[in-house]
Amino acid sequence: MSHPHPDLAPPPPLAEGGLRVVALGGLGEIGRNMTVFEHDGRLLVVDCGVLFPETEQPGVDLILPDFEYIRGRLDAIDALILTHGHEDHIGAVPYLLRERPDIPVVGSRLTLALLQAKLAEHRIKTVPVEVAEGDRRSFGPFDCEFLAVNHSIPDALAVAVRTAAGLVLHTGDFKMDQLPLDGRLTDLPGFARLGAEGIDLLMSDSTNAEVPGFVTSERNIGPVIDDVFRTAQERIIVACFASHVHRVQQVLDAAVANGRKVCFIGRSMVRNMGVARELGYLTVPDEIMVEQKEIDNVPPDRLVLVCTGSQGEPMSALSRMANRDHQIRVTERDTVVLASSLIPGNEESVNRVINGLTRWGARVVHKGNALVHVSGHSSAGELLYVLNVTKPSNFMPIHGEWRHLRAHAKLASLTGVPDENIVIAEDGVVVDLVDGKARIVGAVPAGYVYVDGLSVGEVTETSLKDRRILGEEGFVSIVVAVDSTSGKLLAGPEIHARGAGIVDEDFDEVLDRIEAVLRDAAADGVNDSHQLSQLIRRTVGKWVNETYRRRPMIVPVVVEV
Amino acid sequence: MSHPHPDLAPPPPLAEGGLRVVALGGLGEIGRNMTVFEHDGRLLVVDCGVLFPETEQPGVDLILPDFEYIRGRLDAIDALILTHGHEDHIGAVPYLLRERPDIPVVGSRLTLALLQAKLAEHRIKTVPVEVAEGDRRSFGPFDCEFLAVNHSIPDALAVAVRTAAGLVLHTGDFKMDQLPLDGRLTDLPGFARLGAEGIDLLMSDSTNAEVPGFVTSERNIGPVIDDVFRTAQERIIVACFASHVHRVQQVLDAAVANGRKVCFIGRSMVRNMGVARELGYLTVPDEIMVEQKEIDNVPPDRLVLVCTGSQGEPMSALSRMANRDHQIRVTERDTVVLASSLIPGNEESVNRVINGLTRWGARVVHKGNALVHVSGHSSAGELLYVLNVTKPSNFMPIHGEWRHLRAHAKLASLTGVPDENIVIAEDGVVVDLVDGKARIVGAVPAGYVYVDGLSVGEVTETSLKDRRILGEEGFVSIVVAVDSTSGKLLAGPEIHARGAGIVDEDFDEVLDRIEAVLRDAAADGVNDSHQLSQLIRRTVGKWVNETYRRRPMIVPVVVEV
Repeated sequence: MSHPHPDLAPPPPLAEGGLRVVALGGLGEIGRNMTVFEHDGRLLVVDCGVLFPETEQPGVDLILPDFEYIRGRLDAIDALILTHGHEDHIGAVPYLLRERPDIPVVGSRLTLALLQAKLAEHRIKTVPVEVAEGDRRSFGPFDCEFLAVNHSIPDALAVAVRTAAGLVLHTGDFKMDQLPLDGRLTDLPGFARLGAEGIDLLMSDSTNAEVPGFVTSERNIGPVIDDVFRTAQERIIVACFASHVHRVQQVLDAAVANGRKVCFIGRSMVRNMGVARELGYLTVPDEIMVEQKEIDNVPPDRLVLVCTGSQGEPMSALSRMANRDHQIRVTERDTVVLASSLIPGNEESVNRVINGLTRWGARVVHKGNALVHVSGHSSAGELLYVLNVTKPSNFMPIHGEWRHLRAHAKLASLTGVPDENIVIAEDGVVVDLVDGKARIVGAVPAGYVYVDGLSVGEVTETSLKDRRILGEEGFVSIVVAVDSTSGKLLAGPEIHARGAGIVDEDFDEVLDRIEAVLRDAAADGVNDSHQLSQLIRRTVGKWVNETYRRRPMIVPVVVEV
Repeated sequence: MSHPHPDLAPPPPLAEGGLRVVALGGLGEIGRNMTVFEHDGRLLVVDCGVLFPETEQPGVDLILPDFEYIRGRLDAIDALILTHGHEDHIGAVPYLLRERPDIPVVGSRLTLALLQAKLAEHRIKTVPVEVAEGDRRSFGPFDCEFLAVNHSIPDALAVAVRTAAGLVLHTGDFKMDQLPLDGRLTDLPGFARLGAEGIDLLMSDSTNAEVPGFVTSERNIGPVIDDVFRTAQERIIVACFASHVHRVQQVLDAAVANGRKVCFIGRSMVRNMGVARELGYLTVPDEIMVEQKEIDNVPPDRLVLVCTGSQGEPMSALSRMANRDHQIRVTERDTVVLASSLIPGNEESVNRVINGLTRWGARVVHKGNALVHVSGHSSAGELLYVLNVTKPSNFMPIHGEWRHLRAHAKLASLTGVPDENIVIAEDGVVVDLVDGKARIVGAVPAGYVYVDGLSVGEVTETSLKDRRILGEEGFVSIVVAVDSTSGKLLAGPEIHARGAGIVDEDFDEVLDRIEAVLRDAAADGVNDSHQLSQLIRRTVGKWVNETYRRRPMIVPVVVEV
C-alpha cells in the first residue's frame, strides 16, 4: 500500500491519456467531500461539501475545500456531479458557483431540489441536470453512468466514470440495506456488471470500515419507535437530522398508528420535509400535521414534535428545552427520542442535552439505550461485498479519517487487491491513473477555508491560533499615552484584562513596574512606540507568569500624542 | 422519588439526633466527589476530589468543590475519609488542608501513599490515619467501619458510618469483579451483614447505572495484551492511567512472558508505579526495567513503553508522538495500545491521537477494537446485587451525572425501595436522615471553584464567559487619546484586532466613522471617557456586525491626556 510522504512535491504534468484524481476534501476527515477528475485537459468534479468545525476551529461556521487548485481552470469543468443531498456533499456548492455560476450541476431529483432550496437562500441560480439511476451521460470526455445506492437520505447515486484512461467507480456514501424502506437497493448487480467490464479504480466510502459486520436495516427502527409511542405518557419529542426522510417517515407512520398529531420544528426540518413531501419522497397525511403556533391546542398525549438538535447544537430548540430556556417546558411526563447518530466531537454537547432533559424527569431514548438509529454507511461486511463484486485493479479508500482509510485499505488487501495498487491518499494528494496503474505523483494545496459570518477565507489559521489562546487564557491590554518626541508618559498606564482571571486589586504592583520601566526608557531617550510596546509586553508577561503561572495574550498599546 | 426543586431554600437547623448529608461534589457530575456528614454538631468528610474541566470551562486546570459550606466550621471536622486514591477522590485534599492542615486524613495504605506523594509536591504535611478493611474506628460521634471494595485501583474501601441517627453505607467507587487479580473481592458478605443489621441510608456509585449487565473481569484483558505482545512487530507503546496498578501489572507480566524490557514514561506514571512497587502492590522484576535514557540501547522488538496520555492530553508524550513532535518517532512497525476508558469529553482528542498514530502506519489497539479495557464501576447488574443484599430503608444514588443518578434510582425502585425513600440530590442539596427517613430539606451553595495556574477561585464564571466569547470571536480594541477637558481627539483611533478575522485593509472605513462620532461628541461638549467609550463601542460593534455578521468583543479605550 502506498501512502503519501509528508512532503510531496507538486505533481508533474499528467501523462497523455491518463486520468488524474485529486480529492480536495474528504480524505483524512469526515466531511467537505470533493473530488476533481482531470482528463484530456478537462475537469469533472464529484461533490462539493462542507466540513463542520471541531473545537480546534473555534467560532468557525463551516469549513470549505480550498478551490485554489481549480480556480484558474473553472472553465474546464464539464460538470459538478452531486451523489446525494447531505451538507458534506452539497454544502460548498454555493461558494463554488459564486466563482462560476454556470457550472452544470448534475444530480438526482431530491438532491437537486435540496440544493435549489439552499441556493435560493444564497440567491444563486444554477444549471441543473437531473439524472437517475440507469442514466448514462457524457460531460466532455467523461462518460458517466449513474447507479442507485442506499443511504440515510433518499435518491443517492454512485457514479461510474469512463474515460480513455479506464473505468472508475465512485460509490458516494452508501450502505446496503437489503430491505430498504423505499425498496431502492444499492445496485450490486450494476457493480458486478462494471466489475465484469473491468474497474480500473474503485473509490469507496470508508466511514464505517472499522466497524465489523453489517448495518441493521432502517426498517428495524420502526417497531422500536412504535413501542416508544405506545408507552409514552404525554408529549413525544423526536430529534433527528433534517434530511433523514426515511427516519421521519417512520415517525409519521408511528404517529398515524397511535393517533397523534405531528409538528415539524426548526427551519431546516420544515424546509427539507416540505421539499421531500412535494416530490413524493415523504408521505404525510394532511390531517396529522399541525403548525407550531397550534400545538397548545393539541392534548399533550396526542402530540409529536419533530425537530433538529440531535447533536446538542447549543441554539437548537432541543438544547434550549434541556436548559428550560424554551417555551416548551419539558416535564417528567415527556418522552424525548434522539433518533440519530452521535457525530464524533458532539459527545459533550449531546451528553449535556441528555442530562438536562433527564434532570427535568423526561424519559430520554437514544441510540445508547434503544435501536433508534442505524448508520447510513456500510460496515466492513458490506464493504467486502463491494470489493469482491467489483474486483478493482486499483483501490482508493475515500470519505474517512486516517483510521477509516487504513481499515478500508486492509479490507481491500484481504480481498486480493495487490498492496501496490492500494492508494491511501489524503486531501490534496495527486493520484494518476496511467496504463491501468494508480499511483501517487505529488500533492497540491488543500487546506481548510473557513467561513465565519459573511467572510470566506478571512479567518485564517493565525486568527484561530489567537482565538485558542484568548479562549484559554484571555488577554491583558496595557495602554499608555506618551509624548511622541520625549517618550515621556502622558497618561496611563491603563490596564484592561478580560478572561484572564486577574483581579483589579492586583494591578497596582504591575502598574508601578511599568511606570518604572517607562521612566528608565525615557531617561535613556527611547521614544519608539514599538520598542516601548516590547518593554511593556515583557514586563507584564513576566509579572503575570510569576504571579499566576498563566500566559494570557499581552496587548501593549502605546499611543503617541 | 423526590428530587430537588430548582430553587431550594437554605436548610432549617438539623433536628436533634439527625444526620445531615451534603454532597459538595459528585452529584450531577462525574468528579470532585465530596460528601459532608453532620451529626451532633460535628462533621465527617468522605473524599475530596477534583473535577476535570470540559470545553465549557476553557483554560481551567482543575475544578474544586466549594468549601464555603464548611469554611466556618473546619474545626468541627473529626476526619476526612478517602475511599481510594483516584484524583476525583483525593485531588482537592491539598486545597482543603491549606485551610486546616491538621484534619485527620483516613485511608488505606496505598491511598495514603499516593496522597503523600501529591502533598509533598504541595509541601503540605498531614496527619494520616491508616485503616484497612475490617477496621472499625470512631471519629467524634461517627463510628466508621471499613469494607473492601474492588475498583480500578488497589486498596479501595467502602465506609459504613454509624451514628445515633442510623447506619449509612457509602460504597465509594466499586465494581464486583468475581475473579480480581489481587484476590481482594468487594465484601458482599459484609454488605449483607450490614443489611441484616439494618441500613438506614445506602449511598452507592452510579457511574455505570445505565449500562446493563456486568463488568467483564480485569483478568480477561491479560490474554488480549499477551496476544498483542506476541504479534507486535517492533516497539509496543501502552498508554493507560497512571494509577491503574493492575492494568500495568498485566502489561509487565506480558513483557516478562515475551522477553521485553519496560520503560515507564511520564512523571505521574513513574511516581505512582514507584509507590505501588515499594508497597508491594506491583511486582516488577528488576531486570526488565529500563530508564528512558537507555531505551535506544534496547532493540525495538524487545521494548515496551508504558506512558500516560490515553485521554489525548495535548502535551502528553503520546499526543506528541502522534504529531511527530517527540523524539520517539512512531513508524508502521510500532504497536500502540490505549488500555483505558475514554472519558466523556475526550473523544475528539483521543480520535486525533488515533488518527495521528494511524497516519504514520502504527497499529493502534484500543477499546473500540479489542478488549484492552474494562470499567472500574459496577454495571446495573452488580448494582442490583448490592441493593438486594443491603435492603436499605433509604437510597441516595451518588457519583454520577443526572442520567446516571436517575438510572440508579430506577434500579433501587425495582428492587423494592419505596419511591418516597429514594432521594435524588445534586451538589449542595441538603438531605437529612431523621427518624429513619431521608428527606431533602434545602440547599447550600456548591458551585465550581476553578484552579488556573496558581490561583484558586480567582477565575470566575465571568472570566469563563469572556474566554468563551474571545475564543469564538476574538476581540477588537480601539484606542483613542482625547483632551481631558475638551474631549477633542489627540491621537488615534488605533485599532488592534486579534482572533476576529478582520483584515487591516478593512479598518479605514470604521476609523473614519469613529472620528466622525468623536468630532460630533466634542462639538456637543461630551468629554466623559465612559460616554466616549460607549459611543466607540456602539459604532464599531455595528460596523463589525454589518460587515462580517460577527460579534467579537469590542474593547474601547479612551485615554484622557
